Amino acid sequence: MLSDLEISHKADLKPIQEIAASFGIAKVEIEPYGSDIGKINLSILKRIDDRPLGKYVLVTAITPTPLGEGKTVTTIGLSMALNRIGKKAVCTIRQPSMGPTFGIKGGAAGGGYSQVVPMDRFNLHFTGDVHAVSSAHNLLAAFLDNHLYHGNVLDIDPYTIGWPRVIDMSDRPLRQVMVGLGSKSNAPLHESKWDITAASEVMAVLGLSHNLHDLRSRLGRIITAFTQDGKPVTAEMLKAAGAMAVLLKEAIKPNLIQTLENTPALVHTGPFANIAHGNSSILADKIGLRLADFVVTESGFGADIGAEKFFNIKCRQMEKTPDVAVLVCTIRALKMHSGKFKVAAGKPLDVELIKPAPAVVEEGLGNLLKQIENVQLHGIPVVVAINRFDTDSQEELELVKAAALKAGAQAAVESELWARGGVGGEALAWAVIEAASKPSHFQYLY
Amino acid sequence: MLSDLEISHKADLKPIQEIAASFGIAKVEIEPYGSDIGKINLSILKRIDDRPLGKYVLVTAITPTPLGEGKTVTTIGLSMALNRIGKKAVCTIRQPSMGPTFGIKGGAAGGGYSQVVPMDRFNLHFTGDVHAVSSAHNLLAAFLDNHLYHGNVLDIDPYTIGWPRVIDMSDRPLRQVMVGLGSKSNAPLHESKWDITAASEVMAVLGLSHNLHDLRSRLGRIITAFTQDGKPVTAEMLKAAGAMAVLLKEAIKPNLIQTLENTPALVHTGPFANIAHGNSSILADKIGLRLADFVVTESGFGADIGAEKFFNIKCRQMEKTPDVAVLVCTIRALKMHSGKFKVAAGKPLDVELIKPAPAVVEEGLGNLLKQIENVQLHGIPVVVAINRFDTDSQEELELVKAAALKAGAQAAVESELWARGGVGGEALAWAVIEAASKPSHFQYLY
Amino acid sequence: MLSDLEISHKADLKPIQEIAASFGIAKVEIEPYGSDIGKINLSILKRIDDRPLGKYVLVTAITPTPLGEGKTVTTIGLSMALNRIGKKAVCTIRQPSMGPTFGIKGGAAGGGYSQVVPMDRFNLHFTGDVHAVSSAHNLLAAFLDNHLYHGNVLDIDPYTIGWPRVIDMSDRPLRQVMVGLGSKSNAPLHESKWDITAASEVMAVLGLSHNLHDLRSRLGRIITAFTQDGKPVTAEMLKAAGAMAVLLKEAIKPNLIQTLENTPALVHTGPFANIAHGNSSILADKIGLRLADFVVTESGFGADIGAEKFFNIKCRQMEKTPDVAVLVCTIRALKMHSGKFKVAAGKPLDVELIKPAPAVVEEGLGNLLKQIENVQLHGIPVVVAINRFDTDSQEELELVKAAALKAGAQAAVESELWARGGVGGEALAWAVIEAASKPSHFQYLY
Amino acid sequence: MLSDLEISHKADLKPIQEIAASFGIAKVEIEPYGSDIGKINLSILKRIDDRPLGKYVLVTAITPTPLGEGKTVTTIGLSMALNRIGKKAVCTIRQPSMGPTFGIKGGAAGGGYSQVVPMDRFNLHFTGDVHAVSSAHNLLAAFLDNHLYHGNVLDIDPYTIGWPRVIDMSDRPLRQVMVGLGSKSNAPLHESKWDITAASEVMAVLGLSHNLHDLRSRLGRIITAFTQDGKPVTAEMLKAAGAMAVLLKEAIKPNLIQTLENTPALVHTGPFANIAHGNSSILADKIGLRLADFVVTESGFGADIGAEKFFNIKCRQMEKTPDVAVLVCTIRALKMHSGKFKVAAGKPLDVELIKPAPAVVEEGLGNLLKQIENVQLHGIPVVVAINRFDTDSQEELELVKAAALKAGAQAAVESELWARGGVGGEALAWAVIEAASKPSHFQYLY
Repeated sequence: MLSDLEISHKADLKPIQEIAASFGIAKVEIEPYGSDIGKINLSILKRIDDRPLGKYVLVTAITPTPLGEGKTVTTIGLSMALNRIGKKAVCTIRQPSMGPTFGIKGGAAGGGYSQVVPMDRFNLHFTGDVHAVSSAHNLLAAFLDNHLYHGNVLDIDPYTIGWPRVIDMSDRPLRQVMVGLGSKSNAPLHESKWDITAASEVMAVLGLSHNLHDLRSRLGRIITAFTQDGKPVTAEMLKAAGAMAVLLKEAIKPNLIQTLENTPALVHTGPFANIAHGNSSILADKIGLRLADFVVTESGFGADIGAEKFFNIKCRQMEKTPDVAVLVCTIRALKMHSGKFKVAAGKPLDVELIKPAPAVVEEGLGNLLKQIENVQLHGIPVVVAINRFDTDSQEELELVKAAALKAGAQAAVESELWARGGVGGEALAWAVIEAASKPSHFQYLY
Repeated sequence: MLSDLEISHKADLKPIQEIAASFGIAKVEIEPYGSDIGKINLSILKRIDDRPLGKYVLVTAITPTPLGEGKTVTTIGLSMALNRIGKKAVCTIRQPSMGPTFGIKGGAAGGGYSQVVPMDRFNLHFTGDVHAVSSAHNLLAAFLDNHLYHGNVLDIDPYTIGWPRVIDMSDRPLRQVMVGLGSKSNAPLHESKWDITAASEVMAVLGLSHNLHDLRSRLGRIITAFTQDGKPVTAEMLKAAGAMAVLLKEAIKPNLIQTLENTPALVHTGPFANIAHGNSSILADKIGLRLADFVVTESGFGADIGAEKFFNIKCRQMEKTPDVAVLVCTIRALKMHSGKFKVAAGKPLDVELIKPAPAVVEEGLGNLLKQIENVQLHGIPVVVAINRFDTDSQEELELVKAAALKAGAQAAVESELWARGGVGGEALAWAVIEAASKPSHFQYLY
Repeated sequence: MLSDLEISHKADLKPIQEIAASFGIAKVEIEPYGSDIGKINLSILKRIDDRPLGKYVLVTAITPTPLGEGKTVTTIGLSMALNRIGKKAVCTIRQPSMGPTFGIKGGAAGGGYSQVVPMDRFNLHFTGDVHAVSSAHNLLAAFLDNHLYHGNVLDIDPYTIGWPRVIDMSDRPLRQVMVGLGSKSNAPLHESKWDITAASEVMAVLGLSHNLHDLRSRLGRIITAFTQDGKPVTAEMLKAAGAMAVLLKEAIKPNLIQTLENTPALVHTGPFANIAHGNSSILADKIGLRLADFVVTESGFGADIGAEKFFNIKCRQMEKTPDVAVLVCTIRALKMHSGKFKVAAGKPLDVELIKPAPAVVEEGLGNLLKQIENVQLHGIPVVVAINRFDTDSQEELELVKAAALKAGAQAAVESELWARGGVGGEALAWAVIEAASKPSHFQYLY
Repeated sequence: MLSDLEISHKADLKPIQEIAASFGIAKVEIEPYGSDIGKINLSILKRIDDRPLGKYVLVTAITPTPLGEGKTVTTIGLSMALNRIGKKAVCTIRQPSMGPTFGIKGGAAGGGYSQVVPMDRFNLHFTGDVHAVSSAHNLLAAFLDNHLYHGNVLDIDPYTIGWPRVIDMSDRPLRQVMVGLGSKSNAPLHESKWDITAASEVMAVLGLSHNLHDLRSRLGRIITAFTQDGKPVTAEMLKAAGAMAVLLKEAIKPNLIQTLENTPALVHTGPFANIAHGNSSILADKIGLRLADFVVTESGFGADIGAEKFFNIKCRQMEKTPDVAVLVCTIRALKMHSGKFKVAAGKPLDVELIKPAPAVVEEGLGNLLKQIENVQLHGIPVVVAINRFDTDSQEELELVKAAALKAGAQAAVESELWARGGVGGEALAWAVIEAASKPSHFQYLY
């Protein structure tokens, strides 16, 4: 069996201009970054503004094990499957963070035969967007401290500084630091911390912006500290928002890359779901919806975190609601939810987890059923996708499907996107098309 | 009179592929980053390896005022002038640092009608090389602290940690910090500091590397700390050098951009001259020397700092010595060297400085004469270029030229590269051609 | 009306040797510190060891207002009253802390006509015991850090250092500090804090020690940190306990001072009740019990904190149980416990608090009744002492007395010790004598 | 041979009241601290104010080895010798610091048969003066930080805080600290340090004060920090000076103790000579001069440091100049000054140092001759006292005496004060009497 990296290196990539053209992007609208990656110039927005919108498919999941249950694989693979069966489709995913890339969890390009390529540039600097977010974020921190150094006209209380610095790295000792030691020329002295860039509010803001002007305005409203009499101090008041927007001038352009099957993939922004909204950008999705029949996107963690944020934050800001949700699960994770097993990244899997045990699967079903209910509360149809492993027994798979349907899922299908690429998801694709064709009754809950 | 930015925006840019082709770079050897910037794939090295080398021209200066005396303008402009008079020429310059860009000093794209374009992308993220250097540098810092956290098998003395972190920003309170506060899970606790990325040893190393393998090996030899019994702890011992090299995989490729006159300019690495060697990369110069008749490069600060480092460090590592040195001076700076004036960036210029005063110029001549002597000690011919201002009197200019010739300069000419572009430097170009045609007797001093 | 200080300065003090002699202390057993204060040499212990023990009276209180309800006044005053009516009695109280002395709360010498004198030396350095505790405590901190500096043979984990430094001062910024900055010669670098000396474990230990040998042994068992494999690091292991005991050689001797009525008062150790046992020393009480018919002592805060610690910690270590508890209350505090008023030190008292309001008193009675119950659970008789103010109405006073008796108190009497000295506490003295004459059924609860 | 401690324990001490009486101190003027130590009430000053002044003898030394050359032994011993031969004499020495006491150097009670007793109480807390200085010093630090916390009405620049905290302990990690971490309630956050109490400016001030009023005024003038516009912030401005003076109310009273020969010794204040004036108090010397024929005092380090400070600082503040200086030297130290040997505290002595070697002594003589010259520049007679060791050869001793006389010393005598007590210093005593009888021509140099 080939590793993800080996599969990736065997890929037969097409020039990014060709991918762009096939997707309906004009030559002047694609800015190449090397031969395989491009940025989409925002001038496209005006040209395609009056086109009809495609169907909007959200991929979410049950509560995952630390190994992940295949949301990204399903997102990428489903878009390939839809293309295979004649639908113009694109996936929109988030950029990786170098923290996990150099850690145990690894990159974020999907896996098996459902990957985006080239993997190495994707997982490292890509087109520099994460660096630009770091720069813009840290520029604001420097402006804030500089304001305190140069007389503090705004009367900022240094003990209220709530704007950290960021770095795209897992760097433990930066979690709690003291800056400005030594002498007054290094002032201001205060406690601070570094977050990972994916946790930056600038990253969250970038993902929610509709255009450069909107970005500029959102950046200006960021609160960094409070005055001695308790009033908020914004980036605008610190005169930093303009420079931050300039630093994000390229980063606001969605990135175009391709899947192993040469279908287009939009990759843009990467906020973490634990401390931000955890969804890829509104801009990428909007472009995708004007150019394709189907846009398949994903949200971080399980449906009770990432999908909730997708529905209540991203959709609200985007003014576009989803047509169908794909809920990914694995037999392995359902067994873990029985409470009988511990799964830890970087440690060997408990062998009991891969032996057929329908009764144990049944004990863990509650998580799946609750997540189905959660999504249905928002009024949209659910398709359950069982990300199938060789070690799953048919009895286990049927048991899950039956339970899902009983809980109200529109469909429950097995998928083999990881092992077989798009062809392994054709059943899922048809089920999604079917579910998406029904009228949506979406509603916000918060 | 137009500002630098206005001139820059009026430029008529050619596609970077076209610039590359005209310079002899094959289509597969140029990787576009947008339409105006490209990276040169190192596969070119093998193809051009047996070509004859062009002439190697170093631009240096007298001790500058804080405003700079026009080294970069002369470097860019001289390459344009050489092209104008029929010589295939390229300039090789350093990437800017965002510290000065957002500070008083500003960008590093040259000025007036001797600039490289597009200025905004050049001065901000460019092709991400500086970010890659930051990432590689900081990865090593994280690996070092992580080693201490996980049992410290190498028995590193935390008080000897001499590897800072870096950021491409002027951020005062980061000059002296304490990291790892709060609890053992944030360990190790130690004092640290942030340097600006242009001061990173990784940046210096990148500029001196001949290829990826050489880079990997140099990175591995970096010393970060010492063991309790006083032995050096290298990046190799921390198992960080491989990952650092991977992060620099794109950054090691020289960048191609164009001048206002559509001649090629190579831009690569940006070490600071005060704490590093302060010269652009060996790789860019080597490619230039195989493709062009003349490579015009510059070194930071005055000849007594930057040129010395160029001669004794860069040339030694490169195994190629220069053919001629252009020594830039201004009437304004010579007046300052009389000791009668103070010049400070961000403050209005003393009006006395721009009134004709040959006697004052004469008092300041010592700096020029000493710098001529310094360069001549290395055995290469010197051409003095007087970067001419409207306010200079002819008497002053003639006085300087006579003194320079008397001190042994091959030629002393006025240049109007800033005001007129390449055409303003034709006399300088001819003088350089003449001086470079003489046999070189270069020798190292250290 | 005279202030406490004025009353104190009008006192007619007798030489401390005379007080000592009247109390049965031999001339060689009293070491004068100036004319009015003495230390009792521990050689006395052997001489009086076989004498019968006097009655042991604990003064405690309902939950106090921040102003205090008069426990110390009652303790000092009751001992004076007992002497007045022919019983040989002594009070044993704690030394003051300079934190409160220089703060809002003020000194700890009692008040009105129930004070110990001289007040100024009592409230400042006294005989230096608190300084000795600070020195011994901080010596251990220095030994611990020194051990880490000199090779750390015990393999102490610096992140487990749990031994603070102390100072007898309210000094806010010392609550959280970083020590050892600058260089390895200042090592070890670690986070630390300063407690007030009254919160030192050394102070707590000193108050529980039976003799110098016992003190030495208890000091040796203090845990300061843990090794890398989780084992405790004691003062003994750091070879500090001997030097600490030497530094406490004088401090272990109880101090003798006199009341305004020239009766003896023993003052020894001052642990805080919020973070230590909060009682004066076992040694002072033991000497008192051999020399007097009645020893009146007090414990910090209300009966639910200080008395519990007295019963379950001090008595257990002392192997002597109390014969009677006096529970002090005020009409003012009972009104506060109705929940209708806020009382804050340093702010003017709500005028409503001093107007007669029996119904409000009744609403706050629960605190008194619960404290009576708490003490009775230990099996000893309770006498309620109402510390009477001019503004109390007779109806309020009677209401409280009736409720106390109903709840099982042996007696409930008004006291005027503050306003009148010993003569104002004769009724209380008789009630205490009566209650103490009953057989005790004391039991520990924890 | 008995150790210092053994000799000390064999001493036959007289009650301190008896020592006081023999010295002319009235009963009400001596406040006992235990049986062997007393404080002299400042009421004595008025009673003895019109008495004639005794002779004032300064003991100083050549540059000492780290082991010390016997200044304190000579000071104590010379006073005993003077008493032996019928002169009423007293020595005035400094209090020890617990830093050296618990370090390699040890206590400061003299040595051999020239000691003050009791040694243990002398070397530890004594009468608490050092603790009082610590308290007063740290109170000012707390007031300063408290001022910053409570609104900073004086507009103090926290980066100019120049007032450390102090502790009477050698505690390395306190040399550089950060205080006020954690939150605003621990403010102000600033870098700070701890000095040893003997280095406190309060200790220096106490030693130079003439009475409590003068002390109060000097404390008020202490500068602690500067305002944002550069004006000094004094203890008076912080309203701390009054409380500091109250804390020093007992410490300002000189302490009386006795020598092994039951002669009086005054011990008061202990500023370090490296960072303060390094001399015992003016008050002790003034009382001594009114009560005795001879006051023998000492100053820290060699004559080029301590004696200079004695002459130019203490004498100037005291308005009394010395009559004679005793310059102590040892053969051992002169050999060290040849540059041929290293002497380090805590390490075994080089055996070559104790073998007779007149030529080596001669090589080291320069230090002695220069120190004689230094003292003579102030216009007072010098008596050289050679602190004799068993291992000194007569040839070496004679050589030193001859050179000293040649350099202008009034006398040069051997002393055996360490080995024999007062009787071993009779020759020195007679020489001092002789020299002190000459008219003084003292002058300040600075």
